[in-house]
This record gives sequence, structure tokens and C-alpha cells, in this order.
Amino acid sequence: MTEHSLWRFSRALYRAINERHTDELDALIDDEVEWAIYGPIDMFPFFGARRGKAAVLDVCRQVADNVRVHRFDRESVMLGVDMAASMMRFSLTALNQNKPISLRLAQFAQFKGGKLSNMRVIVDTFDLVEQALGHPIHLPKIA
Amino acid sequence: MTEHSLWRFSRALYRAINERHTDELDALIDDEVEWAIYGPIDMFPFFGARRGKAAVLDVCRQVADNVRVHRFDRESVMLGVDMAASMMRFSLTALNQNKPISLRLAQFAQFKGGKLSNMRVIVDTFDLVEQALGHPIHLPKIA
Repeated sequence: MTEHSLWRFSRALYRAINERHTDELDALIDDEVEWAIYGPIDMFPFFGARRGKAAVLDVCRQVADNVRVHRFDRESVMLGVDMAASMMRFSLTALNQNKPISLRLAQFAQFKGGKLSNMRVIVDTFDLVEQALGHPIHLPKIA
Repeated sequence: MTEHSLWRFSRALYRAINERHTDELDALIDDEVEWAIYGPIDMFPFFGARRGKAAVLDVCRQVADNVRVHRFDRESVMLGVDMAASMMRFSLTALNQNKPISLRLAQFAQFKGGKLSNMRVIVDTFDLVEQALGHPIHLPKIA
């Protein structure tokens, strides 16, 4: 039984972010990859859509410039033949502010020949924004 | 081949929200269900964690009081034996404000004997909050 592409990709992404090694990651991304992390790109320029390996490697380097990952837990994982979905919780430091951030997200990944061909990430963005600002945003009760 | 529990549950949830029929939904929820929609509960009291069928039916009624679903698209779906993960996009109306809302979320569901036993939902909450407020929140660029 061979290892699922998700695990290889996740290790390579972790190393790219924390150790700034993108060689392994480079080998695991399809040239025509489609990528999106949904969220406010004004505050986090590494959010948003990217297309093609060069753009995705570049965005991973931007993430590496901004965060260090301390730990992550997969709260749910589903593996298909060439797909994976997981719900994850990250403990990070935002490097420019030296601030701890706790982040929950869902990722949906597709692979082609073992390489990442599609990645979509949904983040609990309001919680992230409040932590990055360092104070709560006042909200009216609407419901 | 029998229908996956996700499809039955989704139809019942849709009817519970749009037509205020919870009988079908009642039959498809495990008594000991665990449920969480992550997001700002000050603004949306139907977000947050719930435990047990009565609490989950109650929260579905609260959602029904507040939104009408116009359409939803599953952008990704993964089905396992007793699990499902999907990334979805909803077009809603917030009833109290008569306001259109477009919402992206990820749901991870587990079933036991065909009944929902666990549901976790991650929402792109910042985007939702801005739409519900009706104006953008100014954010500094931090990265």
C-alpha cells in the first residue's frame, strides 16, 4: 500500500513554510495547479486565487515569510483515490507581530499523478482577523 | 446501491430551513449528535456548538427563522462509508434585513446507522460578517 499523496504533500508544505525548503514541494505540484484560499486579501495578500506552479510556490514563500507553524491537528480527514479533505487546527506565530494565532480551516485537495492539481481552503476568517488585529470587532446581534 | 446518508440528510435539512418541516430531519439525527458551526455567536446566535438532537433541531429552527436558501452548489464532495465532506456555496436571503447573502462553507459530517452523529461546519466568516453588516470593515495590511 503506497502512501496517500496528501501526506507527502503536507510534509513538503510544512517544510516549505517552516524551513523555507521548496524543492520537495516543487516536485509535488502540477504545472497547471489551481489554488485558492478564501479570505480578505487586503489584510492577507497571500490569500486569494493562484494558477500555475510558479504562482503557488511564490504564495507558499509569502506564507513562510509571515508565519511559523507550531503544531497542527487534523480534526477530520477523508481520503479518496486522488482527493483529500481535511479539517485542521493550526497554532501559528504571525512573525511580523510575534503574535500567537490559532486557526481553524478546511482544505480540499485533488492530485494528478501524485501531484497537487487543485487546492481550495476555507478559513474561519473572522476569528483570524480579530486575532491579527489584536482586539475584537464589535458586532451587532442581527438574528 | 443505496443512497448515501448525506443526500437524505441534505434534503431534510433544506426542507427544515425553507419549508419549516422538521419531521424528516428529526428521523435523521442521532440522539447523541455533536454539532458545531464555527463563527461569531454574538452576531449569529445559531452558530456555535450544540449537543443532542433537541438542541440541533432547535438550532435548525433558528436558522429557518433567519434565512431562506435560494440555491446551493457543491463545489467539492467526498463520500466515505459513514462520512462526507463537502465545500458548498449558498445563495441566501437574510430574512430580517431582506438582504441577499452569498456564503461559502465546508461541512464534515459523520453518520451512524444512517443518522447524523457529528457535524462540523467552517464558514468564510469575515465575508459573511461584512455582508450582514452591509459595509466593508477596514483592515490594515499586515503581511
